[in-house]
Amino acid sequence: MTKKFVYVFGDGRADGNAKMKKLLGGKGANIAEMTNLGIPVPPGFTITTEVCTHFYKHGKKYPSELKDHVSQALQYTEAIMGTKFGDTEKPLLVSVRSGAAVSMPGMMETVLNVGLTTHTISTLIKKTDNPRFVYDAYRRLIMMYSDVVMEKAAEIQPKDGVGIRERLEDLIEERKKEKGVTLDTDLDANDWKELSEAFKQTIKEVLGKEFPDDPYDQLWGSIGAVFRSWNGKRAISYRRIERLPGEMGTAVNVQAMVFGNTGDESATGVAFTRNPATGENVFFGEWLSNAQGEDVVAGIRTPNPINIQGKADKNQQLSSLEEAMPGLYSQLDGIQKKLDTHYRDMQDIEFTIENGRLWMLQTRVGKRNGIAAMKIAIDMVEEGLITKEEALMRVKPSQLDELLHPMLDPKAEASAEVLAKGLPAGPGGATGQIVFTADDAETWAKNGKKVILVRNETSPEDVHGMHAAEAILTAKGGMTSHAALVARGWGKCCIVGCSALHIDRKKKTLQVNDQILEEGDWVTLNGTKGNVYTGKLSLVPTDPLRNESFLKLMRLADEVRTLGIRTNAERPEDAEQARTFGAEGIGLCRTEHMFFDPERIMAMRQMIVAETEDERRKAVMKLLPYQRQDFYEILKAMEGLPVTIRLLDPPLHEFVTLTDEQTTELAKELGVGEEKLKARINSLHELNPMLGHRGCRLGIAYPEITEMQARAIFEATAQLTKEGVKVLPEVMIPLVGSATEYDHQEAIVRKVADKVMGETSIEFPYLVGTMIEIPRACLTADEVAQKAEFFSFGTNDLTQTTFGFSRDDIGGFLPTYLEEKILPHDPFQSLDQTGVGELIRIGIKKGRSVRKDLKIGICGEHGGDPDSIDFCHRVGLDYVSCSPYRVPIARLSAAQAVIRNM
Amino acid sequence: MTKKFVYVFGDGRADGNAKMKKLLGGKGANIAEMTNLGIPVPPGFTITTEVCTHFYKHGKKYPSELKDHVSQALQYTEAIMGTKFGDTEKPLLVSVRSGAAVSMPGMMETVLNVGLTTHTISTLIKKTDNPRFVYDAYRRLIMMYSDVVMEKAAEIQPKDGVGIRERLEDLIEERKKEKGVTLDTDLDANDWKELSEAFKQTIKEVLGKEFPDDPYDQLWGSIGAVFRSWNGKRAISYRRIERLPGEMGTAVNVQAMVFGNTGDESATGVAFTRNPATGENVFFGEWLSNAQGEDVVAGIRTPNPINIQGKADKNQQLSSLEEAMPGLYSQLDGIQKKLDTHYRDMQDIEFTIENGRLWMLQTRVGKRNGIAAMKIAIDMVEEGLITKEEALMRVKPSQLDELLHPMLDPKAEASAEVLAKGLPAGPGGATGQIVFTADDAETWAKNGKKVILVRNETSPEDVHGMHAAEAILTAKGGMTSHAALVARGWGKCCIVGCSALHIDRKKKTLQVNDQILEEGDWVTLNGTKGNVYTGKLSLVPTDPLRNESFLKLMRLADEVRTLGIRTNAERPEDAEQARTFGAEGIGLCRTEHMFFDPERIMAMRQMIVAETEDERRKAVMKLLPYQRQDFYEILKAMEGLPVTIRLLDPPLHEFVTLTDEQTTELAKELGVGEEKLKARINSLHELNPMLGHRGCRLGIAYPEITEMQARAIFEATAQLTKEGVKVLPEVMIPLVGSATEYDHQEAIVRKVADKVMGETSIEFPYLVGTMIEIPRACLTADEVAQKAEFFSFGTNDLTQTTFGFSRDDIGGFLPTYLEEKILPHDPFQSLDQTGVGELIRIGIKKGRSVRKDLKIGICGEHGGDPDSIDFCHRVGLDYVSCSPYRVPIARLSAAQAVIRNM
Repeated sequence: MTKKFVYVFGDGRADGNAKMKKLLGGKGANIAEMTNLGIPVPPGFTITTEVCTHFYKHGKKYPSELKDHVSQALQYTEAIMGTKFGDTEKPLLVSVRSGAAVSMPGMMETVLNVGLTTHTISTLIKKTDNPRFVYDAYRRLIMMYSDVVMEKAAEIQPKDGVGIRERLEDLIEERKKEKGVTLDTDLDANDWKELSEAFKQTIKEVLGKEFPDDPYDQLWGSIGAVFRSWNGKRAISYRRIERLPGEMGTAVNVQAMVFGNTGDESATGVAFTRNPATGENVFFGEWLSNAQGEDVVAGIRTPNPINIQGKADKNQQLSSLEEAMPGLYSQLDGIQKKLDTHYRDMQDIEFTIENGRLWMLQTRVGKRNGIAAMKIAIDMVEEGLITKEEALMRVKPSQLDELLHPMLDPKAEASAEVLAKGLPAGPGGATGQIVFTADDAETWAKNGKKVILVRNETSPEDVHGMHAAEAILTAKGGMTSHAALVARGWGKCCIVGCSALHIDRKKKTLQVNDQILEEGDWVTLNGTKGNVYTGKLSLVPTDPLRNESFLKLMRLADEVRTLGIRTNAERPEDAEQARTFGAEGIGLCRTEHMFFDPERIMAMRQMIVAETEDERRKAVMKLLPYQRQDFYEILKAMEGLPVTIRLLDPPLHEFVTLTDEQTTELAKELGVGEEKLKARINSLHELNPMLGHRGCRLGIAYPEITEMQARAIFEATAQLTKEGVKVLPEVMIPLVGSATEYDHQEAIVRKVADKVMGETSIEFPYLVGTMIEIPRACLTADEVAQKAEFFSFGTNDLTQTTFGFSRDDIGGFLPTYLEEKILPHDPFQSLDQTGVGELIRIGIKKGRSVRKDLKIGICGEHGGDPDSIDFCHRVGLDYVSCSPYRVPIARLSAAQAVIRNM
Repeated sequence: MTKKFVYVFGDGRADGNAKMKKLLGGKGANIAEMTNLGIPVPPGFTITTEVCTHFYKHGKKYPSELKDHVSQALQYTEAIMGTKFGDTEKPLLVSVRSGAAVSMPGMMETVLNVGLTTHTISTLIKKTDNPRFVYDAYRRLIMMYSDVVMEKAAEIQPKDGVGIRERLEDLIEERKKEKGVTLDTDLDANDWKELSEAFKQTIKEVLGKEFPDDPYDQLWGSIGAVFRSWNGKRAISYRRIERLPGEMGTAVNVQAMVFGNTGDESATGVAFTRNPATGENVFFGEWLSNAQGEDVVAGIRTPNPINIQGKADKNQQLSSLEEAMPGLYSQLDGIQKKLDTHYRDMQDIEFTIENGRLWMLQTRVGKRNGIAAMKIAIDMVEEGLITKEEALMRVKPSQLDELLHPMLDPKAEASAEVLAKGLPAGPGGATGQIVFTADDAETWAKNGKKVILVRNETSPEDVHGMHAAEAILTAKGGMTSHAALVARGWGKCCIVGCSALHIDRKKKTLQVNDQILEEGDWVTLNGTKGNVYTGKLSLVPTDPLRNESFLKLMRLADEVRTLGIRTNAERPEDAEQARTFGAEGIGLCRTEHMFFDPERIMAMRQMIVAETEDERRKAVMKLLPYQRQDFYEILKAMEGLPVTIRLLDPPLHEFVTLTDEQTTELAKELGVGEEKLKARINSLHELNPMLGHRGCRLGIAYPEITEMQARAIFEATAQLTKEGVKVLPEVMIPLVGSATEYDHQEAIVRKVADKVMGETSIEFPYLVGTMIEIPRACLTADEVAQKAEFFSFGTNDLTQTTFGFSRDDIGGFLPTYLEEKILPHDPFQSLDQTGVGELIRIGIKKGRSVRKDLKIGICGEHGGDPDSIDFCHRVGLDYVSCSPYRVPIARLSAAQAVIRNM
C-alpha cells in the first residue's frame, strides 16, 4: 500500500477533517472540515506534512508517487470547477499556501494566481471583461513568484543587497511618478500590462532566468518554495522563540482561486464569530467590495463593518455587508454560527464573494485578549458547548494580567515612540513625573503628584518611595531584582534592567542617547511590554472583581484545582488584597522590611553594633512591640487562614548602608565612637552577601533575634486567640542547609512558644518548619524533616545556588544565554524543571520518607508562573504562594495543571 | 548465667587480654595481656565498661552482683600479695584508676594509696621503717580523695570558688613558709603527719563530711568517682573535640599499690621501646630512684636517662638505670623487647621498682612524631613484625606535613608568647619582617630581606609579593581563601583569618589589642598551629626526599593505592616540585594568574573595555604568544603525563581593580575617554561575583577568549609533539551548569584543535572535559557527559553553592558553627560527604550512565585532605589532584583508603 500524500476537498466532500492537523496542517484540516460541513469552499487539495518531512530527509526530493497524486487531485479540482489547469479556454488558477499544524502567521510563503500565463491571460480577460483585474493578477503572480520561488527558495543572494521584489516595486513607483499619481489603484490595465513585461525583463537580467510561462512549472515551483520556506530564516527563528519543534513540517494547500475583485458583485472580508476584544457573542468583522483579501489586511482602504451592530462612530457612514448584500450576509451569518458551534470556539474566518457567490477561504481559532477569552469560555460553558475543563484551558493564565493592572491605552501607545526598552517586571501601564530618590517620590506623592521612581537599582531603604510611586523604572537588575519583586508584590507597574538609561542622580537627570529628561518630566511605562515612552499617555482602568466572567472562571478553577494557593505578603493591606483575589493563606511573610521603618531601624542598628550579648538583647527587645503589632495585624487580616512567617533573612549590613554623615549621626545617637562604628560596619561587608551571614546563620549567631521574633509572633497569637480570632502562625526558619541548623533554631522557637503559653495561660496551635532554598537542604531533607513540620521551597535562592547564578548579576550574561539558546528561558522567571526541579523532587522524596504528612509549598517568584505551577502540581506540592496580584493566575494555572495531567 | 563484671589479673594469669579493650579499657586490657605474658604486674582487677554503662542507665546504681564480684577479686589480689585490704597487720593498698577503650589522657580521675587509714598507718611504718613515706602517702590519699571523691564526684560547688585541693595545698605552703623552706621534699614525717590532721579538719569544715577512715568506704568512693568522671566536664569536652562517642564508658582498674619511693632500692620510670622522636630502634626512657611515678612526669626532679645510649649532653653526668641497677635494667630491657615484639608497635611503658623488685604498671602504644612514625613503620615491616598495609596505617597523613615544611623549633616556641591566633592555612614555620603591600614584599625580598606579607586579605594582584614573602598573614579569609590556596600551592607557611589583627595599611601598622607592630618588625608564624609570635624564633629545616623511611613509605603507598594522584600547578617550577613528590599529572592548571603579569595585563584590560568583537579579538590575540609559552613550559615539565588546563575562570573585574590614578593612566594607554573607561569598569562590578559573570559564562559571551586559549594550548602541543616530547593536554571548561554551555565551548575548542592540526600538519591527542562545580552540573551530568570526556569535581565551588556559603565570608559565622556543633568541621577543609558528597555521587552515577569510561577526578582543595580522599576512593574516582606539597599526603591517604575499605 502506498502512502496517501495528497488529500482532496471540494463540493461537500473531503478526504481529511479537522482532526488531521498534524498531517494536513491547521489550514488544510479546517478547509477539509468546512467542506465536509457543506460549507462552500473553493476546491483543491492538501499535500501532507509527511511530504515535507520526506523532502528534507531525502535531499529535497519528493516521493516518486507525488507527481501522480497531485495530477489526480488537480483533475478532481478541475472537475468541480469545470475548468482546466493551463487550459486556454477555461483556465483554472490556483493558490499555493503553507499550513503547519501550529499556526506560524506570516512566517512561510504563499503564491497566488498560479496558472496565469501569457496563454491564459486573454481568455481570462474575455471571461471577466476586466483587463485591469487580469493584468493586476498577473503582475502580482510575477512579483510573488520571482520573490518567493526564483530568489528566496533558490537561495540566491540579492544582488547589491537589493531583493527582486524591491526592484519590481521600484518599477511601479517609477511608473506612478511618470503618471503623477500616488496610489496603485490609480494605475490602469495598460500600466500593469507594461509593468508585467518590464518585470519579466528585470527578472531575467537580475536572476538570470526567465519567469516561467508554463503553468506546471509555476505550480511545482510554488510547491517547492512553500516546503523550502519551512526552513527559511524567519520560520526557524519563529519556531525557536515559540519553542516549536522543527521536525513536524508544513503541508501545502493548492486551491482554486476565487476573486473578490472582479466587480461590484464581488467582495472579500475577514470576520470573527464573536467579538475578539470583548468576547460578546456577536458576529464581528469587516469587508470590502470589489477587493482582494490582502486589501482588507493591508489597510490601504478603510474596510466596512460587516453588520449594523458592528458599526462604531468612526465607520457609521460605511455600508455594512448586511445592508449591501443581505442574502449573502444571511448565508455568511449561518455559516459563522455553524462554525462557532461546530468548532466550539470563536473562529476567525475569511471569505470571498465572487460574482455573487460566497466562498469560505479559511476558518481558524481566533485570537482574543484576556477579557474576551474569559467571556467566551464562560459563555460557551453556559451555552453547553464546552465543559468547564475546556473553558479553563481556553484562558492563558498570563491573560489574566490584563485584568489585574491598569493598561496603557493601545491607541495612545500605537502612535507613541519608544524611548527605551527594559524588562517587563511589573505588568500594566503607568504614567507619571520622574523623580530620582525614594524621599522625593514620597514628598511629591504627598503633594498629590503622580511620580515614576527612576533608580539604577532599588534597595530595601527605597521601599517607601517605591510604594508612593506609580511605577518603578530601573537601569539595572533583572526580573527578580528587588525592584521587580516589590513591584509585582503590589501589582505595581515596573520596568527593570533598562540599560539604555544613564542616570545622573546628582544632577537628577536621565539620559537616553542624546535625549535628556529632568526631574518632573513625564514618562509613561508599559510594564507588560517593557516599553518606556516620553510624555503622558492615557491609561485604561481595570477591575477584575467586577468582571463576571473572571469571577465565574475563578470559581470553576477552584472546583478543579488540588493545589492550595497562598500569597506572599507582609502588609495587612496586601494580605487583604490577596484574600479578595482568593488567597488561602500567606505562604511567605517576610519580616525584614518591617525593620526599615525609621523608628525601628535605630534599634536594629544598635543591635548590629552591640559588642556583648546583653547589649544586643537590649537593642533587639526594643523591636519587640513593633514586631508584635506587625504580626497582630497580619495574622488578624488572615483570620482563619495559615500565615507562614519567615524569620529575619537578609545580611545585617543591609541595615547599615550609611553615608558618612549618617554614620556620624548614628554614632552620636548610639553613643559609640565613630571609628568603632565604622569598623563594625566595615566588618559586616561581604564579598558575596548572597552566600554570606544571613538567614538562619543570623539566628544562630544571635539567638536573641530569633527569640524576639518568636516572642512577637506568639504574643500576637495569644492576644488574638484571647480576642476570639482564629489564627494559624507557621514559623519558618530561612536558609537551612543542615538539620543541625534547623534543630538549633526550632528549639528556640518552641521554647519561646511554651513560655508565652505559660505566661498568658493561652494555648494556641502553631507549626515550625523551614524554607528549603539551599541544595544541601534538599539533599539532606530526610534529616531536616525529622523535626520540621513543613517545607517551603524558596526557589529564588535555590535557583541561584543550583545554577551558581546571582540574580542581581545575571544581567551580565543572561541576554547572551537566551540568544545563544544556552538557556531555554530565564530560570528566575520559570522554574528550571531539569536541574532545580530535580533537587525539589529529591527534597520532597526525602522529606516525605520520614514524615508522610509533611506540608510542602513553594514561595519563590515561581509560585506565580504557570509552567512552574504545573510542575508543582506534578511533583505533589500542597500549595504555591505568589504575590497578591498573581493569585488569580495561580488559581487558574493550578486548575489547568490538574486538567493537563489528568 | 550472670554477667562477668570483674576481671582479675596477677601472678601470670589474667581473665582478660589485649583484645578486650572495649570491655576492659586500654589500660585494663594491656595489664591483663602483660600478666598473661608472664611479665610482673601488681595484681588487681578491672571493673568492666559495662558497669559504667549500667551505672548511667540506672540512676548511678551498680549491678547488684558487683559488690560480691569485687570482694572475690579483692581476695584474689590479697592472696597473691599476701596482704589483706584493711588489715592492721598486712594491709593491702590499692590504686583506683580509669581506663577507657580509647585513651583520654588526664581527662578522668585516679585515686592512689586507697586502704591507708589511721588503723593501717602504724603497721606500714613498722613494715617500711619509713614514717615520712607513709605520712606522705597518707596526705596524698587525703588530697586526691577529698578533691576527686568528696568534692568533684559529689558535685559540690567549691566554696567561694576555691576548691578543696587548693585549700589543702595552701596549708602545705603555709607550713613551708613557717619552716622557711621551698620544696615539698624539705618537709619531714612530722610535717606530713600534722598536715594530714589539718587536712582532715579542713575537709570537715569545708565539705561538712569526715574523710573516711574505712578502707571499703575509700574503695567504693574511689570507684564511684572514676565512673562519675566519665561524664565530667573535662572528659565530655575532650570527647567532643576528639569526636568520641559518649556511650562506651570507662573501666575501673583496682590494682595493688607498689612504691618506688620506699628507699634507695626503689625507683620508678617511664620509657619507650623505640625513640619516639626519631623512630630509632633503641630503648629510650627516664627513671628516678626513690620516687613515685608522678615525680618523673611532674618535672620537680630532673629524671635520669634509662641507659648509657640515651645519655645526651645535658644529662651526661646522671647515672643510668643500666649502670645503677644492671640486673633490673636487663630484666626491664627483656620485658620492653618482648612488649615491642608482642604488640608489634612502639610501646610507652611505666614501671616501678619496689625494694629491688621490678613491677610493670602500664604499657600502651606510644605517641610519636611524624618522622618517628615513618621510621618505626618501615623498620617493623623490614623486621617482619607488621605487613606493609599495617605500616601504611601507622602513619597519619597529616604527620607527613612535618617533613614537608620547615618547622618552628618546638623549644623556641615553648617559651614564646602567642601574639594572635588564626587559621593554619599553610603548615610549617616562618619568620620575617612584616610588610603591608605586595610591592614592598617584593622590594624588601630583592634586598635580601625575609618578609612576612601582612594583608587584610590577598588578591591575584598580590601574587608577586606573596611569592617573594616567607609567609603570608591575613586578618580575613578562611582556609580556602586566596591567600590560603596560593600559599599551600607553594608549600608556603600561611595564617589566615587572624581576626585579632587590626591593620592600618596607610600607617603601615599592625595592632593587636594595645600592641602595635610597625613595618620591619619581626614576627614568627607557626602555620601548622596558626600561631603568630612577635620576634624572630628559630626554625628547623626538613627535606623529605632525603628521608629513607619517607621514600620507602611512599613506595609502599604506591603499591597499594588505586587512586591516581595529580597536582594543582600552573608554574613549571611547581609542576616539577610536584613530580618529585610523585604527582602523576596536573589535575588543575589555572590560567588566570598568567594574565596578571604587567606585560600582559594591558592587553587583558584592552580586551575588557573593548566595545566591538573586532577590538576585543585584537586585544585577546596579543595574549596568544604569552599563553602559548606558558603552556609550552608546563606541558614540557609534565612530559608523558596528562595536564588538565582550565580555561579562564575569574570575573573580569578582577583584572581592572584600579585606583583613580591607574584609571587615568590606563585610559591614556588605551586611548579611550576616562569617563567611558570608568563606566565600563563600573558596569563589571557585581554584587555576588562568585555567582556572577565568570567561568564558561565568559567564554560564551566572549568566544574569542576561548579560541585564543585553545589555540595557545594546541600550538604549544603541536610544537612539543614536533620536538618529540609526548604531551597530553586536557582542556577543561569551567563552571558548567548545563550541557548547552559545555557543548558551546567544546565546539570552539575542537574547531581550534582541528585548525591547528591542519595548519601544522601535526596530529596530537587531547581531551575536552569539564569542571563539575555547580549543583546543576551534578544533577544533569548525564547530559553533560554526552560530550565531555572527563569530569573534574571542583569541590571548592561545589561546597560554596551546595551550602550557599561564600568561602570569603564564612568567617562571619563559621566559628559559631563549629562551636555550636552546627557543622562537624569546616566543609572547605574536609569534604561534606553527606550533602556535597551526595551531589558527587549523583554526578558520577549520571555521568557514567552515559559514558562508562568517563575519567573522573577532583581538583578542589579537598583533593589533599585524607578523609576526603577516602571518600573519593569509595565513590570510585579515578584520581585526586592537590597542591604539590600535599601530593605525598594524598599518596598515603589513597593507600590507606584502599586498606580501610578492603
